[in-house]
This record gives sequence, structure tokens and C-alpha cells, in this order.
Amino acid sequence: MTVSSDLPPDPSTVPSTDPSTGGAAGAPGAVLPLRPELAGLEPYGAPQLDVPVLLNVNENPYAPSEQVVADVAAAVAQAARGLNRYPDRDFADLRADLAAYLLAESGVALTPAQVWAANGSNEIMLHVLQAFGGPGRTALSFAPTYSMYPEYARDTSTRWVVGRRAEDFTLDPEHARATIAEHAPSVVLLASPNNPTGTALPAATVRAVLDAAARVPGGCVVVVDEAYGEFRRAGTPSALELLAEHPHLAVSRTMSKAFGLAGARVGYLAAAPALVDALRVVRLPYHLSAVTQAVARAALAHAPELMAQVGSLRDERDALVAWLRGRGFEAADSDANFVLFGRFDDRDAVWQGLLDRGVLVRVTGPEGWLRVSVGTPAETAAFTDALVEVTGR
Amino acid sequence: MTVSSDLPPDPSTVPSTDPSTGGAAGAPGAVLPLRPELAGLEPYGAPQLDVPVLLNVNENPYAPSEQVVADVAAAVAQAARGLNRYPDRDFADLRADLAAYLLAESGVALTPAQVWAANGSNEIMLHVLQAFGGPGRTALSFAPTYSMYPEYARDTSTRWVVGRRAEDFTLDPEHARATIAEHAPSVVLLASPNNPTGTALPAATVRAVLDAAARVPGGCVVVVDEAYGEFRRAGTPSALELLAEHPHLAVSRTMSKAFGLAGARVGYLAAAPALVDALRVVRLPYHLSAVTQAVARAALAHAPELMAQVGSLRDERDALVAWLRGRGFEAADSDANFVLFGRFDDRDAVWQGLLDRGVLVRVTGPEGWLRVSVGTPAETAAFTDALVEVTGR
Repeated sequence: MTVSSDLPPDPSTVPSTDPSTGGAAGAPGAVLPLRPELAGLEPYGAPQLDVPVLLNVNENPYAPSEQVVADVAAAVAQAARGLNRYPDRDFADLRADLAAYLLAESGVALTPAQVWAANGSNEIMLHVLQAFGGPGRTALSFAPTYSMYPEYARDTSTRWVVGRRAEDFTLDPEHARATIAEHAPSVVLLASPNNPTGTALPAATVRAVLDAAARVPGGCVVVVDEAYGEFRRAGTPSALELLAEHPHLAVSRTMSKAFGLAGARVGYLAAAPALVDALRVVRLPYHLSAVTQAVARAALAHAPELMAQVGSLRDERDALVAWLRGRGFEAADSDANFVLFGRFDDRDAVWQGLLDRGVLVRVTGPEGWLRVSVGTPAETAAFTDALVEVTGR
Repeated sequence: MTVSSDLPPDPSTVPSTDPSTGGAAGAPGAVLPLRPELAGLEPYGAPQLDVPVLLNVNENPYAPSEQVVADVAAAVAQAARGLNRYPDRDFADLRADLAAYLLAESGVALTPAQVWAANGSNEIMLHVLQAFGGPGRTALSFAPTYSMYPEYARDTSTRWVVGRRAEDFTLDPEHARATIAEHAPSVVLLASPNNPTGTALPAATVRAVLDAAARVPGGCVVVVDEAYGEFRRAGTPSALELLAEHPHLAVSRTMSKAFGLAGARVGYLAAAPALVDALRVVRLPYHLSAVTQAVARAALAHAPELMAQVGSLRDERDALVAWLRGRGFEAADSDANFVLFGRFDDRDAVWQGLLDRGVLVRVTGPEGWLRVSVGTPAETAAFTDALVEVTGR
């Protein structure tokens, strides 16, 4: 159990030292009241390197088709004619389209009032923590998990607590219950499929968490982060199926992965209307541009084509897991578009060896493991060839 | 002096009452831990009504030209071909273009490292308050001013304090100094031109505020919000000119108004690189989509054409102020694309009378005043005709 930040309210200062400002450090006006918990931090993000095979940030390797590009451009041209006006603050049409998509994808019927969207699912999480977290409150997850979660907590001055996943990256329901009872969080974040491990949670585990959350005095919202939900294996349920019974459940999704729209920044969430209404209060007005709304809707119209691509990525993923295990590597079960593999005595050396061969993967997760995104067949081949060379296996 | 929020850390609850969730209020799982300061609040925003003449939210009345539309569409089509990849987190090209634009517009030379951008200037303000405000800290402005400011403070759990502007909406430097000394804010927000009054601050007043801010123990950042900066009258300076001497100054701008791109959601800020670096730490990764970057850059390439339009809106604004005063109304001096006018014993009745005649203005500012945006000449004529009818003057 680690409590990594319980934010102090005391102000602190850092000097501005940039010579181009004309202000010497320590001179009047040269002191910036940076929050103490931010001092010395670097902005979050994977290294952006120019490498032939990019398998480090779980992007969809397939660029939008020319038909998608043309439809996106046409939709944006239409929106552009009215860009002098503010966009629809409540993006009613996009919410209806997202609800229709979720029905097709998961078989769960939702009204537009049960759907919310924002600039990436990280803004979704920010809204959730602004509404339900904040000073004096606790957000909780189970490690290893997505490395942005503690940043959302930090950015909203929410105390951040992590429980643990088992050795195989599953979550023990009893441990989850006990951790929730101990810390009484107002928000629990559950990634399923989990990043960086790829692990999906069975419905029974999610139900156990929901049950424990319902017993927290003052209430507790559970967000199941299904950013990689479309890549789940046959028989793995979506937490969307639990929404009808659980008004304190939210399920977040993104168009960055399955839809191959990481550059468009569209995340969304499904929950009870009362939960969505709380997010509407904390969102910045007009947070979703008319252009973003147009791009998302144009892409959603191509959902069947994009879902076919998801199927081939799933097959590619399963083949990669099988290949890794066949070669004597460990590979975590994955319901996502990436695979956590290892273990290596010196994972940094393996990472560097792959990079030297033009393949960029990610150093993340527990010591000894690396994460590789599922690319095109050619990219996967480049990865497996390089891995054989680097490790000699 | 009003202190409107000093946020308590205690959790509170509101019941979920929506029948579609299947959870009865009070049942396990039916309690949402909404932050107490959000209970009962409605989302921010002007009424969105379908009216022929929309003069309520200070939009630019001129839609983008067909050439701008075509260039935006072409830029987005190009960006769309790579939308499966995450965007440039640091949007280097857009920052360079914005710096070049500010040089052309204000004669102030800035490096890209001195420029920041986000989804609307309200996200800019959120970044500023996340980095420099927050729990235990105070943000300060002078009323009447932009009604979103207290929401930014609330969303970041920053204490919110307001001083006052004079009867003519100017800011007395001595009052500003004393208020800053009394409350020791870590952030001061100064709108210039001010919304909803249109009042620009003289450089001497901004300097007085900067001087007082520099004396705050722990440091204080001053944000001069120039959302309407391009509409300032000849001889009114931009606070950009003060940047070189003041590392604790930030000047925010937007493409929503002068550029007529409210629907694209692009706000930006100029400041010392050390101040911008602090914003980079709190921004959500990839907050600015590849599409938004492409749209903004395409529009910036048309800056000269759009600036000519700004000149005609300024003329229209000055003529509207003169007309109002000639008819015996009060009209505040305006350096913006709107005019605060009045005073009316029953401003709501005048607002309704105008709406009944197809003209939507805004009920905002001190009692007795209304705010009207500067529209096309035809829209202004519709407004003045309706006002004569409604008031009989």
C-alpha cells in the first residue's frame, strides 16, 4: 500500500531563472508561486522519438482510410462555415451517436443523457475527480495500473492511494473490498483491460468493487476505464452491462484506440444521468469544439469498418502472445492492443537493443517487464525479429 | 469585498434520483459523493435560444470566408491521415505561428517557448490556477468582471476574492494595491478589455498591480486577460509590452473573438518560459488535438484578412456607443466587441422586449445594465430599431 500524495496547502516558491524574461531570480516579480507538489516535475509523456516502428503508446497502427479522411474533411468544412459561433455546449448529436455506437458494440442501450464526452478520456477523468474528488477526498486504484491516474489526483488535489494487484495482475475481490473499506475513497479507478498489463476484470470482481463502494459513507463513484474495451476477447464482458443496476458506476471509453483517432482527442463516459449532470457542472463551457464534434461524428459513421480492423488487431495480439510464450518469454494475458512481456534482468538494455533496431517499445509496469503495442503484421515481425536478435532466444 | 468560496474539505452527498438508473435514492450505490460546493448548481452558460439576431455572447458576426473554410478543410484532411497517432504534445508549430501573429499584431517579439495554448482561454485559466492556485491559495479579481473567473477558482479549490472597480468601471491603482496587500493572492486575474464592461486598463494600472503582486510573499502571478485585445482602440496598449520586464505576468488571448473561431476553441497565453513550463506540468497530455492545431494554423495564415474585419467591427462599435449616447442611454467606454449600456429600471423587461423583436442580448453586469455584442451593420440596425421600440426613446 502506498500513499503517494496527500497535498499540503502551504504555498511555496520557485525562482524564475530564464534569462529571456529580463528578471533575475529573487528580484521583485521573479518569484512564481508554483505549487510545491509540482516543483521539479517534468511534463508527463512517453519519449517522442523518430523511429521506424512505433509500438510504445498503444496507438492503432492503421491510419484512417481515404474515405474516412474525406468524410472528416467534409464534416469539418461544414462546421467551419459556422466557426464564428460557439459550439453546442451539450453536443447532443455526438452523445446520441456515441450511445448508438455503444449499443452496437456492447448491446447496452443508453440514452444520450447517459453519455458524456471530453478532449480525451484524461479530461473525462479530470471531470470525474473535479466533481467527486478534490481536497479532503481520496481516489484509489490498484497497481500496477495506468500511470496517469496519480496525475489526475494531483491535478485536483485529491489524495491518491493504491492497493495491489496479484502476481498475475488480476485483482483479488477480498483485497479490493478491504482496501476500499479502509480508505473510504470517493472515487475508485479500475482500468479494464488494465494498462500496462492488458488484464480485463471479470464481472464478479467489478461487482465486488461496486458493492464495497456502495458501503463507503458519503458515497463512492467507481470508474471502469475501458479505453481498450473494444479489444477484449470473446466472452469478456463490458462493465456497460452493469450500468443499469449501479448509479455510482461510470464506464469510460475513448476513440483514440479502437477508432484509430488518438490525434482527435475524444474520450467519453457512460453513467447514470445524475452522474453525468455532475460532470456538466464542472466542465469548462464549450470544452468540446465544433470541429472535434464533427470529426468524431464522421468517424463514428464508419464504425463497422473500423471494428473489422479491431478484429484483426485482436488476432494479431493473440498470435503475438502465443509467439512470445513459444519462445520462452512471459506474456501477460491481454484483452488490449498491447502485450506486457518479459521478464528481463535488464529491461532497459532490451529496450535500448530494440530501439537500436528501429523498434520503440515502452519501459513501464513492474520491474523486468516491457510493453509492446500491437502493430501491423510487418511491424510485429520487425519487433519479433529484433527481440530474437537482442535476447538471443 | 466578497469572499465567495473558501472550500470546505468535508465530503457530502446528494442522492441520485433518476429513475432510469434503476437505483432508488438512498439504496446502496445510489449516493453520489458530489462536492458540497457543487450541490444544486446549474452548468455555466448563456441561454442558447434560436433567435434571428444573436448579440449575446460576443461572437464575431462574420463567418469564415470560403477561402478560410477551404484551407481549414484541407489542413484537417492532411491531419486526418495521421489521426491514428497522438498529436504533438508541445504543438511547436502552432506556438511559433502564434508568436509570429503576436509580433504582427502588437509589435512584441516572443519565442515559441513563451507561448502556450489550450482548448479555449478558459482551459488556459484552468492551467494557471492548477499550477499557481489551488487549496490554501487565493485568486483575486476586481468586479464587475468576467463571470467565469469564480468558476475557475471553484474548479481548482482556490479561494476567490474580489475587489471593486470604480463607478466608471476603471480600476483605482491604490485600491488594487491595498486589496492585493490585504489578501496576498497567488493569482490575480485582470480582464482588459474587461468583460462585461469593455474597459481597458491603462499601462500604469497594470504596472501598479504587477508591482503589488511582486510584493506578495511566496509570489503572485498576474494574468491580463486580453480575450478582446484586438478590438482595443488606437493608443490603448497591450500588456504584451510589459512581458519583458515582468516574469510574473501572463497575457491570455483567444482566437474566439477577433479570429471568429469561437467554435474551434483555441485560447493562448504569452509569458516567460519559466511560467509556461509550469503550465506544461499540469496540462493533460495531448490536450490540444491534431485537428485543433491544424485549424488554428490554417486560420492564422489568414490573419491579415481577419484583422481588416476587426477594424470594421471597431468602427461599428464606436458608432454604436455614439448612437446610444445620442439617444440618451448610458454606454460604457468600450475597447471590446460589445457595449455595456443602460441603465434601465427593469433591465429584464428591456431584455425580453428585445428578444420579442428577435434580438438576443445579455443580462449581465451591475444592476440596470445590459450587454450587446457588435454585430453586422444589419444586426446593429435590428438592435437599435428594437431598442427604440422597446424603450420609446
